[in-house]
Amino acid sequence: MEKIDGKSSHKQAERLKRLTETAGDTTMGKVLRQFWHPIALSKSVAAGTAKRVRLLSEDLTLYRGQGGTVHLVGARCAHRGTLLHTGWIEGDQVRCMYHGWKYDGSGQCTERPAERPGSEGSVRIGAYPVREYCGVIFTYMGEGAPPDFDLVRRSSCEQEGVFLLQRKEIWPCNWLQVAENSLDAVHVSFAHQMGKVGAFGEAVPAEVPEVSYEETSAGICQTAVRRLGEKTQVRVSDWTFPYGNTVVIPGVKAGDPWMEVTNWMVPVDDEHTIRISLRAAPSTSPEADAALKRYFDECDDYNSADHHDELFAGHYPDDPLVRLTSAQDYVALIGQGTIADRTSECLGASDRGISMLRRILWREMDAVETGRPPKPWRRLDQPSKLMGYVKETD
Amino acid sequence: MEKIDGKSSHKQAERLKRLTETAGDTTMGKVLRQFWHPIALSKSVAAGTAKRVRLLSEDLTLYRGQGGTVHLVGARCAHRGTLLHTGWIEGDQVRCMYHGWKYDGSGQCTERPAERPGSEGSVRIGAYPVREYCGVIFTYMGEGAPPDFDLVRRSSCEQEGVFLLQRKEIWPCNWLQVAENSLDAVHVSFAHQMGKVGAFGEAVPAEVPEVSYEETSAGICQTAVRRLGEKTQVRVSDWTFPYGNTVVIPGVKAGDPWMEVTNWMVPVDDEHTIRISLRAAPSTSPEADAALKRYFDECDDYNSADHHDELFAGHYPDDPLVRLTSAQDYVALIGQGTIADRTSECLGASDRGISMLRRILWREMDAVETGRPPKPWRRLDQPSKLMGYVKETD
Amino acid sequence: MEKIDGKSSHKQAERLKRLTETAGDTTMGKVLRQFWHPIALSKSVAAGTAKRVRLLSEDLTLYRGQGGTVHLVGARCAHRGTLLHTGWIEGDQVRCMYHGWKYDGSGQCTERPAERPGSEGSVRIGAYPVREYCGVIFTYMGEGAPPDFDLVRRSSCEQEGVFLLQRKEIWPCNWLQVAENSLDAVHVSFAHQMGKVGAFGEAVPAEVPEVSYEETSAGICQTAVRRLGEKTQVRVSDWTFPYGNTVVIPGVKAGDPWMEVTNWMVPVDDEHTIRISLRAAPSTSPEADAALKRYFDECDDYNSADHHDELFAGHYPDDPLVRLTSAQDYVALIGQGTIADRTSECLGASDRGISMLRRILWREMDAVETGRPPKPWRRLDQPSKLMGYVKETD
Repeated sequence: MEKIDGKSSHKQAERLKRLTETAGDTTMGKVLRQFWHPIALSKSVAAGTAKRVRLLSEDLTLYRGQGGTVHLVGARCAHRGTLLHTGWIEGDQVRCMYHGWKYDGSGQCTERPAERPGSEGSVRIGAYPVREYCGVIFTYMGEGAPPDFDLVRRSSCEQEGVFLLQRKEIWPCNWLQVAENSLDAVHVSFAHQMGKVGAFGEAVPAEVPEVSYEETSAGICQTAVRRLGEKTQVRVSDWTFPYGNTVVIPGVKAGDPWMEVTNWMVPVDDEHTIRISLRAAPSTSPEADAALKRYFDECDDYNSADHHDELFAGHYPDDPLVRLTSAQDYVALIGQGTIADRTSECLGASDRGISMLRRILWREMDAVETGRPPKPWRRLDQPSKLMGYVKETD
Repeated sequence: MEKIDGKSSHKQAERLKRLTETAGDTTMGKVLRQFWHPIALSKSVAAGTAKRVRLLSEDLTLYRGQGGTVHLVGARCAHRGTLLHTGWIEGDQVRCMYHGWKYDGSGQCTERPAERPGSEGSVRIGAYPVREYCGVIFTYMGEGAPPDFDLVRRSSCEQEGVFLLQRKEIWPCNWLQVAENSLDAVHVSFAHQMGKVGAFGEAVPAEVPEVSYEETSAGICQTAVRRLGEKTQVRVSDWTFPYGNTVVIPGVKAGDPWMEVTNWMVPVDDEHTIRISLRAAPSTSPEADAALKRYFDECDDYNSADHHDELFAGHYPDDPLVRLTSAQDYVALIGQGTIADRTSECLGASDRGISMLRRILWREMDAVETGRPPKPWRRLDQPSKLMGYVKETD
Repeated sequence: MEKIDGKSSHKQAERLKRLTETAGDTTMGKVLRQFWHPIALSKSVAAGTAKRVRLLSEDLTLYRGQGGTVHLVGARCAHRGTLLHTGWIEGDQVRCMYHGWKYDGSGQCTERPAERPGSEGSVRIGAYPVREYCGVIFTYMGEGAPPDFDLVRRSSCEQEGVFLLQRKEIWPCNWLQVAENSLDAVHVSFAHQMGKVGAFGEAVPAEVPEVSYEETSAGICQTAVRRLGEKTQVRVSDWTFPYGNTVVIPGVKAGDPWMEVTNWMVPVDDEHTIRISLRAAPSTSPEADAALKRYFDECDDYNSADHHDELFAGHYPDDPLVRLTSAQDYVALIGQGTIADRTSECLGASDRGISMLRRILWREMDAVETGRPPKPWRRLDQPSKLMGYVKETD
């Protein structure tokens, strides 16, 4: 049991604070830039449109060319700083609304209508590679060639007989406390038992689990063992670096099949986080599939942050799963503050997933600072079995 | 006449600023912590519920056990900082919604469900004593044993034949300018004559009063003398340290009996103030009593701060007493700024109540800093008569 | 072509930042204080009313006496700092709502009801001269006697057969980027061609103009030359120091006569700008005049800043002229940031109006700092012809 003293020293306070930093000139920002990050849902950027996004404290323009390809370039025109997403798309390029400067997906300026033709060659804005996978847009913001696009749990997303459901929320807090929450199976027994707990409450026992954690080639394997009647439930999270978490969760209604869901806690900047979820739901009957899609469509507009005051006054959404569990996590995590004050926390044995995560992050930060190579994260050779039961008497 | 130069020196600016500070590590914060403070209305915390409050720059959880007893503990769980008021009450204790840590009213942790039983003994959060009196919850946030609960004007609240009415507003300004306003009888002739003045305007003459001030064992006795036709009206405020003010005010309708009201200007932090009012209304007929209660119920939701823009544009509530006088004070005091700039003020003879208040505050601050005992404030031996008339020819 | 390097030195960053400052103790603030500034529309201050205004980072009270004369005095009462506009007007003076101190239009205190009569003589608040012209209120905030009220293009406003239309918006950005926009004819070909362009889009060709700039006795003469079919259109802006711009623009409907409009980009403070427009519309028929006035009445409430989110999401007002062009400029200029970051811009030949403006501003700032007299700005001897056509074959 690692215990951090409540009167943590100034040095420890500084170490804890550095874990939460996301900008490119910080060590943790450099660690984060070693990975592919999901930034938006594919459906949120139609062909021929652009939107402003923010990721790792950088302002960016995400646009989809008229041919359907997605690009990610800097937020502002090099000329006089107007926001590019307020311009328009021409073919596979974006044009600034102010004076018509045009850029391609590599950030190269290709036209400056009121200047001498040819002179645009020297003008360039930032740009990052993107790829779409399963309805989610990912980018790599580091230096050099991107790593293999390998860490997503492909066995969940590319299964036969499942269909995919994507969701996104933006929360006003640092990414690390959302990531820590995903390595903390104990909170399920309290935060997610509040109010109406629906199918999730039925299926995941309220009893406090025994938890254990192990570093893997891809991240951390979390195991939570709970007694359920005469059986023992073993629930595993396949957690991939730096913040992706794949678990199984029950369906919306009792009796619905369980689905695998991957949650990413993407750092917008030090004070905001995008939560992107990708669910792989087993297809059953056409009617049941359609009902599940309708339910997810209804949930689409729900962002817990829009209901902040009512949630903190104890009024939760009347919902069996997605909105409710999201709202419960929101109250727990936003309640820790915009950036949780880790100097006055009191970690115990049940928090060893959090302690392990921090140790690994510090190790990888240390590698950046001393010039050692980072751990070569790679997909698990064999995806973990996410749920199982053993009999007490086994 | 004490006059403070408009071009007050840096040192004087510093002295004035220190009067407005409320945190525990400031001298004024220490002076304030020598007293009981009202923090909430009893009716605002039902049995089995919790709410977040803030007092003297400290974040706190106010909850009422299922048996009805009120407790005041720190805002956050010791474990990982989640806000305790978002949890739930069990018996006389509060349980955190995140991992179920439980605390009693003394701040002692009594259960950590995922940790070794018994280990919770060393975990404790802050807590302050509370008491309820006349529908108002008070707390003492100082060190050592609390002083006698003695300064409230009991003769007003515990009279035979009166019933009590409580109200609360929260304003975005420092407490001191609200307190200074209560030692400034002159403003009644201007601020409270604006717009529709109703019974209050009828009963309190617009003529500028002669004011005088005297330090008492409990605070300051303020006397305002006004001619009213052939008579002379003598209106007294029984002002108790550090900010409680008891006066008489007319009823809602002309002819209604006057009532005694105590107003407290409670420092939430340096930039916010709770105004809590406790009125003792003489019971007349059941119908009139019911009408007065109905009127106060209607006023319950009114907080001047919610009407900021319209008030500063000159649109006052159409109300004979409570909302109107509150709104008038709001415009005068918020108009001074969040923390009034006292270095460019121009005090005159009519402001001698304010000057006296500051002199006493500085004296008590000096006692804290030099280790001298504070003045042993105690209730007046004989409550002042708050209103009287003398004939001119007397 | 003046080009400012993207990696501008710290010194250049400082020079650029100083251009945007407005407070009285800054050099640019002193340059701005050499001129008359429009601050409000006449119709916004009825006789016997007061309002709070802010100009060049100073808070002020603008009021109109019961006799109709406008005055501009400090925002706060000298006594205890309450905002004077929340008081009331008596004759040609304003009385504070808190304790009734009264001030005349020169800022002289004339009454302190609770103090010894006569003692008010030594109390005075700030005041600035004002004048009304064509439905707009102007003030001079500099030291010494005001300059001649001479720079407004009188030939536009005082024409026979025109009627005047005034508008005002307040935007959350620095005045300089709004001023720079008015010396940038190129943006018309892009920003104002977005969405529905109406009569303006028809009349001003989308083709990128040839632009040229010349310093005049009053400011800068901007010429934009565009081919329009077989003709060449020559559009001139008569730009007066420090930010007034007179141009011709088409009417609301195709075929309506063009009108001369002067736009001022008035610095509220470093982060806010008032845009005041004064249009001189040729009177045609009573019906057409009435229709135009109705249209402007409808536009009166429109402030682009109230529609910020929808504008940045690409939803423009369904309007042929005033609201649409305002919204387009809003997106371009607010998109540059609250104070545009000029250190990372990339100016070209088409930006030479902006370069000229900055050079002149730096020259005038230098005069202030070295004690040299400023340029004696004066009205053009002959107002420029604002629009003309020449045949290609001419």
